[in-house]
Amino acid sequence: MNCLQDSNIDNAISVFRSERQFLDESQIRIPPRPNKRNNDDAPPATAKSVPEGRPKPANAGVKIYNLVILIVDILVMLVRWIFYTLEALYMVVVPPKPESVAKDVVLVTGAGHGIGRCLAQQYAQLGATVVCLDINDKMNQETVTSIKKERGNAFGYVCDVTNREQIIETATKIKEQVGVVTILVNNAGIMPTHTLLKQTEGEIRKTFEINVMAHFWMLQTYLPDMIQKNRGFVVALSSIAGLVGLNNLVPYCGSKHAVRGIMEACHEEIRMDARKPDIKFTSVYPYMVDTGLCKRPHMRFPNLMRLVKPEEAAAAIIDAQRRGLIDVSIPKYLLYLNTFVRLFPLKAANLLRDFLDSGVESDL
Amino acid sequence: MNCLQDSNIDNAISVFRSERQFLDESQIRIPPRPNKRNNDDAPPATAKSVPEGRPKPANAGVKIYNLVILIVDILVMLVRWIFYTLEALYMVVVPPKPESVAKDVVLVTGAGHGIGRCLAQQYAQLGATVVCLDINDKMNQETVTSIKKERGNAFGYVCDVTNREQIIETATKIKEQVGVVTILVNNAGIMPTHTLLKQTEGEIRKTFEINVMAHFWMLQTYLPDMIQKNRGFVVALSSIAGLVGLNNLVPYCGSKHAVRGIMEACHEEIRMDARKPDIKFTSVYPYMVDTGLCKRPHMRFPNLMRLVKPEEAAAAIIDAQRRGLIDVSIPKYLLYLNTFVRLFPLKAANLLRDFLDSGVESDL
Repeated sequence: MNCLQDSNIDNAISVFRSERQFLDESQIRIPPRPNKRNNDDAPPATAKSVPEGRPKPANAGVKIYNLVILIVDILVMLVRWIFYTLEALYMVVVPPKPESVAKDVVLVTGAGHGIGRCLAQQYAQLGATVVCLDINDKMNQETVTSIKKERGNAFGYVCDVTNREQIIETATKIKEQVGVVTILVNNAGIMPTHTLLKQTEGEIRKTFEINVMAHFWMLQTYLPDMIQKNRGFVVALSSIAGLVGLNNLVPYCGSKHAVRGIMEACHEEIRMDARKPDIKFTSVYPYMVDTGLCKRPHMRFPNLMRLVKPEEAAAAIIDAQRRGLIDVSIPKYLLYLNTFVRLFPLKAANLLRDFLDSGVESDL
Repeated sequence: MNCLQDSNIDNAISVFRSERQFLDESQIRIPPRPNKRNNDDAPPATAKSVPEGRPKPANAGVKIYNLVILIVDILVMLVRWIFYTLEALYMVVVPPKPESVAKDVVLVTGAGHGIGRCLAQQYAQLGATVVCLDINDKMNQETVTSIKKERGNAFGYVCDVTNREQIIETATKIKEQVGVVTILVNNAGIMPTHTLLKQTEGEIRKTFEINVMAHFWMLQTYLPDMIQKNRGFVVALSSIAGLVGLNNLVPYCGSKHAVRGIMEACHEEIRMDARKPDIKFTSVYPYMVDTGLCKRPHMRFPNLMRLVKPEEAAAAIIDAQRRGLIDVSIPKYLLYLNTFVRLFPLKAANLLRDFLDSGVESDL
């Protein structure tokens, strides 16, 4: 039990964990149970995982040892759980300070329009080098020109983010001509708005190509350099439609839920990476933003759930990225509201939906 | 205020709602504010929405009227909210009775293997007519034969669910040869398990084609008849990976989150449909099922989070569908655990992940 003498919680836990992996191996493989009466003669359950030269544990000893480890593990977890929760509550009031982006290269997809353009412009104002990607050359160049006018540092590349080859080719150029991208903003998206039965195959496929698949290709292309540089931020535009299901938006909801899952899984994968790369993930869930995507919105309480201007949305996104927030909705309270409402049955949640009476009408 | 005399809450609400739509129209369009001093002379904000012959409301009167409606609306919502919550808690203890499926035609995708095969067999045992779909003719026929041996009613169709045209052609045959499908089980799925950077473009695309896009094509093909018949159940296999992000499973998590979003949005779209079709949606979130999909699982507490057998998973899914449950995890407690843990910051939730130490290793 030498590990218990270690006063450092983290060290203690890592010791527990390695011990545990050895002791638990017998449970995982679920071997035939050794005869209880002759358990001293039984071979260890999975001999291959026992380091050589280690004494065989006696069965009763192992059980007590496991139990003590378990209890300590639970207690340590509870203490840290409470600490992290209090810390998070404190951070709601006093958020972490925003990091400077002056030395960063920021890549924004869909930079020719709406939130993407505002993101590019505002990042440039903060001193970042901005790489604008869009399928529309003219609109993209307008963004670049507007940044250069304000003496910002901007580069424009025409790129269809649904084309993996093109993404990779463009990335090679960007690395040569601009440098390593340290902030990746997957912003490009479309939102066909009508009932599922009226969505064409082409629309549904395009929604997923732009809103989801592009995230994979961009992540696969830009993560390796971030890992190597040990600095990186990935920002993904999900949507309130990534938190709740909305009518007239079935494929869009699917795509934005997917973005949430991809970001959380990617975050977890980086957390489990042995190299412990310093890469942060920020998922953004805007409600309705006045970018032209939301063609026929309706809402009962426009003051509570008004159309957000793309400038405001961009400012909120950049603020969240710089502070390293993991999830942020625009407006902010909607994320908390959703978490709270999820405690109740859907039938109750639907009362709130009907009360707020907010959504988008079919664009057909 | 005649609507207040109505003792029926639902009627009262519908009256409020129609009134509200008229009165709120002025807020939605956000017209220039009328001069407060001359508001009696100002025209109604959006005259076109006022039914003809209706007297113009005076501004102060409208405000009071709106306020009263709002207060009553909130009170009614709270009462119903509490009722629905208590009802849901009661249903956790005493679930609604399972409906008979003896007169139903059940379609199961991926019926040649694992959970799909068990679902087909168990639905047949309950007296349903089962339509087995699989891309693998041999495996599919094995399922059909096993059902026929037990004197069940089964039909087999070879179908690649990633091919929309083939789905539609197959559906025409099924309708002619078997009848209208009233229970659709979107089960087929794949799970390539390695880090995002090692997933090939082909793997990621295939994951989305089978796990997500197929759901759209199936829904678009089978919903119209369910709506017309005013009876339908849609069951979709999501996953615990549709609730939380897991390493080695970034695209899979994306796809299973997408399924959750699609189901919730589709459910909402049907709820908002003026025809009020009686179609129920059940999303299923299994943890690890022993079907070969989960090649290298590991877990610290195999008793808490053991590999579920496909027979057990199928039984749980059919039970949930027959009782009309909206969301169900296998094992059941994981859904509640996830909802609870989501109240806390990710850092705290990660403590629990690390404590449970359960997941899948790369299959490479």
